[in-house]
Amino acid sequence: MAKYILLVDSKDEKGLIYKITGVLYNQGLNIISNNEFVEEEEENFFMRSEFTGEVNINAIITQLRDVLSKESNIKLIEQRKKRIIILVTKEHHCLGDLLIKNEYNEINAEILAVVSNYPDLESLVSKFKIPFYYVSHLDKEREVHEKEILEILNTFDPNYLVLAKYMRILTPSFVSLFENRIINIHHSFLPAFTGVNPYEQAFKRGVKIIGATSHFVTEQLDEGPIIIQEIINVDHKYRIKDMEQAGREVEIIALSKALKLVFEDRVFISNNKTIIFE
Amino acid sequence: MAKYILLVDSKDEKGLIYKITGVLYNQGLNIISNNEFVEEEEENFFMRSEFTGEVNINAIITQLRDVLSKESNIKLIEQRKKRIIILVTKEHHCLGDLLIKNEYNEINAEILAVVSNYPDLESLVSKFKIPFYYVSHLDKEREVHEKEILEILNTFDPNYLVLAKYMRILTPSFVSLFENRIINIHHSFLPAFTGVNPYEQAFKRGVKIIGATSHFVTEQLDEGPIIIQEIINVDHKYRIKDMEQAGREVEIIALSKALKLVFEDRVFISNNKTIIFE
Amino acid sequence: MAKYILLVDSKDEKGLIYKITGVLYNQGLNIISNNEFVEEEEENFFMRSEFTGEVNINAIITQLRDVLSKESNIKLIEQRKKRIIILVTKEHHCLGDLLIKNEYNEINAEILAVVSNYPDLESLVSKFKIPFYYVSHLDKEREVHEKEILEILNTFDPNYLVLAKYMRILTPSFVSLFENRIINIHHSFLPAFTGVNPYEQAFKRGVKIIGATSHFVTEQLDEGPIIIQEIINVDHKYRIKDMEQAGREVEIIALSKALKLVFEDRVFISNNKTIIFE
Amino acid sequence: MAKYILLVDSKDEKGLIYKITGVLYNQGLNIISNNEFVEEEEENFFMRSEFTGEVNINAIITQLRDVLSKESNIKLIEQRKKRIIILVTKEHHCLGDLLIKNEYNEINAEILAVVSNYPDLESLVSKFKIPFYYVSHLDKEREVHEKEILEILNTFDPNYLVLAKYMRILTPSFVSLFENRIINIHHSFLPAFTGVNPYEQAFKRGVKIIGATSHFVTEQLDEGPIIIQEIINVDHKYRIKDMEQAGREVEIIALSKALKLVFEDRVFISNNKTIIFE
Repeated sequence: MAKYILLVDSKDEKGLIYKITGVLYNQGLNIISNNEFVEEEEENFFMRSEFTGEVNINAIITQLRDVLSKESNIKLIEQRKKRIIILVTKEHHCLGDLLIKNEYNEINAEILAVVSNYPDLESLVSKFKIPFYYVSHLDKEREVHEKEILEILNTFDPNYLVLAKYMRILTPSFVSLFENRIINIHHSFLPAFTGVNPYEQAFKRGVKIIGATSHFVTEQLDEGPIIIQEIINVDHKYRIKDMEQAGREVEIIALSKALKLVFEDRVFISNNKTIIFE
Repeated sequence: MAKYILLVDSKDEKGLIYKITGVLYNQGLNIISNNEFVEEEEENFFMRSEFTGEVNINAIITQLRDVLSKESNIKLIEQRKKRIIILVTKEHHCLGDLLIKNEYNEINAEILAVVSNYPDLESLVSKFKIPFYYVSHLDKEREVHEKEILEILNTFDPNYLVLAKYMRILTPSFVSLFENRIINIHHSFLPAFTGVNPYEQAFKRGVKIIGATSHFVTEQLDEGPIIIQEIINVDHKYRIKDMEQAGREVEIIALSKALKLVFEDRVFISNNKTIIFE
Repeated sequence: MAKYILLVDSKDEKGLIYKITGVLYNQGLNIISNNEFVEEEEENFFMRSEFTGEVNINAIITQLRDVLSKESNIKLIEQRKKRIIILVTKEHHCLGDLLIKNEYNEINAEILAVVSNYPDLESLVSKFKIPFYYVSHLDKEREVHEKEILEILNTFDPNYLVLAKYMRILTPSFVSLFENRIINIHHSFLPAFTGVNPYEQAFKRGVKIIGATSHFVTEQLDEGPIIIQEIINVDHKYRIKDMEQAGREVEIIALSKALKLVFEDRVFISNNKTIIFE
Repeated sequence: MAKYILLVDSKDEKGLIYKITGVLYNQGLNIISNNEFVEEEEENFFMRSEFTGEVNINAIITQLRDVLSKESNIKLIEQRKKRIIILVTKEHHCLGDLLIKNEYNEINAEILAVVSNYPDLESLVSKFKIPFYYVSHLDKEREVHEKEILEILNTFDPNYLVLAKYMRILTPSFVSLFENRIINIHHSFLPAFTGVNPYEQAFKRGVKIIGATSHFVTEQLDEGPIIIQEIINVDHKYRIKDMEQAGREVEIIALSKALKLVFEDRVFISNNKTIIFE
């Protein structure tokens, strides 16, 4: 039976859960799981419902509009695999993990294509019969390069872009085309170690933990809403290359967990932060 | 402003959230947080609401009774510090942590007294001006010993008993007097290493992780509903005494977390398992 | 420059480090890292040295024999990739991780072949141009089935066998052919949940942590020396299938870490336990 | 039997382990544990030996001086409890943990006194019969305040100072009096969130992990060698005060672990980093 997800966010007021579940109840729907959260000081309300039944999407949205304030955001979708495109540069580790999981239906998504500014990963991607597009950025202005990528993306109409170690900074105008739909994996425990050579910095500082952060991409580099952070212990025996390897391992885990949450529609964004209903 | 907690569990049916929140809405109450969970296959429904406002407890319960099935369990309480008594034997580590937290109001509870079958910990407890009762079990039948303890407990009317390394097995009849109100800390990652000398067993088996489990006490030893499990890594350099020390550290953490959850009324028990609304 | 590993274990006595490093010093070798461990009560000594230089293996071993007791075990090897064969049944998760890591030289080993008692994973393995052997166990006595597998293994002369979710019990006589050279991944935090349907057991018990254990295979099922244990937190929202997925994720990590340690010759076995020099 | 610790660091050269263990062997000593580490690129050598026996400290040091280069650092000490003084401001959590551990001999140290710039914690300290010195910083120049503290410290001749949430910045001249002998607990996962209001920063950034760092104090604020880093997961439900509480819990653990390592003489400092022989 099809499963549906309702996502509502609005200013908080008395009776919201009652009013929203009333619409679902009157439609004869069966709620499987329901989550709410109120940001107390900011007075924001968030709710996620999963339900099954004979769903008339338009009728439900109309009735919700009747009981909720005009500023409320309402999203009602049938749960299905997300259509995604992965952008990479040269590193294989996150991509490899996602290709295997895609092959065995473990990420609630379908990888439509992989796009890279280098040709290195084509041999890996082609093993899995997934289209690989090599779009070099060399000798091109950033906007020109992004336009070439966009043309490819547009032929697929993806729900999400996944930056699985894509080492180019995206322009604000590109990002704005995929608002809250680009997920990145960052090589550190943000906000530590932004900037270049993070593992050299970490090595010199003698840290005892290496982190990774998966976040939504916004116009501000490394400043988007954080979805997941993972860490791994290191010690004085780790040289820079060992820290890099540890970093790769923890990046795989952080990105994989973040994508699962996003692709199951469990993540709200509010004030540059995430609210996650696990 | 006083905060109230409503806990409902019942067989699942359509419209439960709507009906329950309707009662709260009609009473003009402001829900701060709401959590529900449905055990799909078992078709059990659990809900916890936190709210503030002018609360008429009897009116709310009456109205809830009207909309819910007769088998539903309804509990509505004003949130306040739990009254607890700690039972110990000779080990100080969990007790010490709780005494410090009690001193600084960090556990949402008030320690009324400490009861022990040995006198060793009196000097620690007395630093904090809390009554200490030494009730030796030597040369007594189990029932007699428990009866002496019960007389002390009855003078305090505690909400919960905390077994912070109390090394005596309680009789079913004693346990039945405090159903779902006795919390224990167990020296392993249950269900591994029940029985005697757990660290000797762990050492001989060469495990790489030491665990601790906090659980409710039921008539079946070591079989009650698990609240929290915590672990700590060990390696070949750990002798038995080092594993014991590691075990103590992880016991402190597990018991402390479990008590916080229970004392904030976040824990349901169903089919010998816990449902926890964090 | 070639790197060499010296592994010595013996009864403990005074001066062992001095005597062993004296041999290396007299040979003009440069020790990169040196680790020792003494099991105090058992009086066993373990030492691992990594060094570079002009190495005359026979001369070193002869000189070590001169200074060490006759019962000492001495192993001196040039560090190179281990030759391994992976045995699987139907589950892809650990295998997929190892195939990707093998493709990018991340496990200090070369996968020579994959052997399975089912044909399901052939399509995955063939993507990576690695031989896949399907050897059904149906309608065969255990010894006959193992003999067929052995014939394949013998054509490759592997250093290690990796049981990456191979769901058949090996006979003692098969195990004895690969003493301390078979590594398994077990679906639980040993010694908990041996036996069938571990996740059903875990679900019914209401555990809050799921584990995985990688260990050497001995004649006693699930009783071999533990190399690594990893855990992942779960909660009441996890159904059996969710616990299984969590289990898969933690199995990948545990097996991968264990293999890295073994393939870098960092693991001693003593009294059915491991001593690991990280 | 008394246990001794030998700590040697020097430029790396061939034969160091051989030469050093030769001295110990010739003295008839029994090495219990031995650890070495070489920073490959920097070519620094570090060694820690634990041994028992009839120890003539002067003879050993003289013989070591004969076989080692002049620049080597040699430290040979009998293992005994460190004499420590704790500095605090108003927060009780780390102090409380250390007082309990001190009471039961769990930290390989003896707390000689507690010094604070506020009177708040006197009642806690006095429970444990440990001297408490209140030295207000109000209306005093930094140097004057430190001089008053120093006069107290000098009466005790401590081995180490522990800053268990001491919220005053120490002057370089004060720090220089206790080089590598002051241990601090910092309220974040360094190098993230230095500066004021770290939890407000963390809350606004929407981090999913809270950290704590224990480090040696140097003249550069928050820049000293890191001993231990610990983390705890948080989520969107954590308000600033909840993050502060989570931070306190992880600070207790980080400081406690760091002190154990330092007080067992397991920590070398090199290039503003720590080398730790666990």
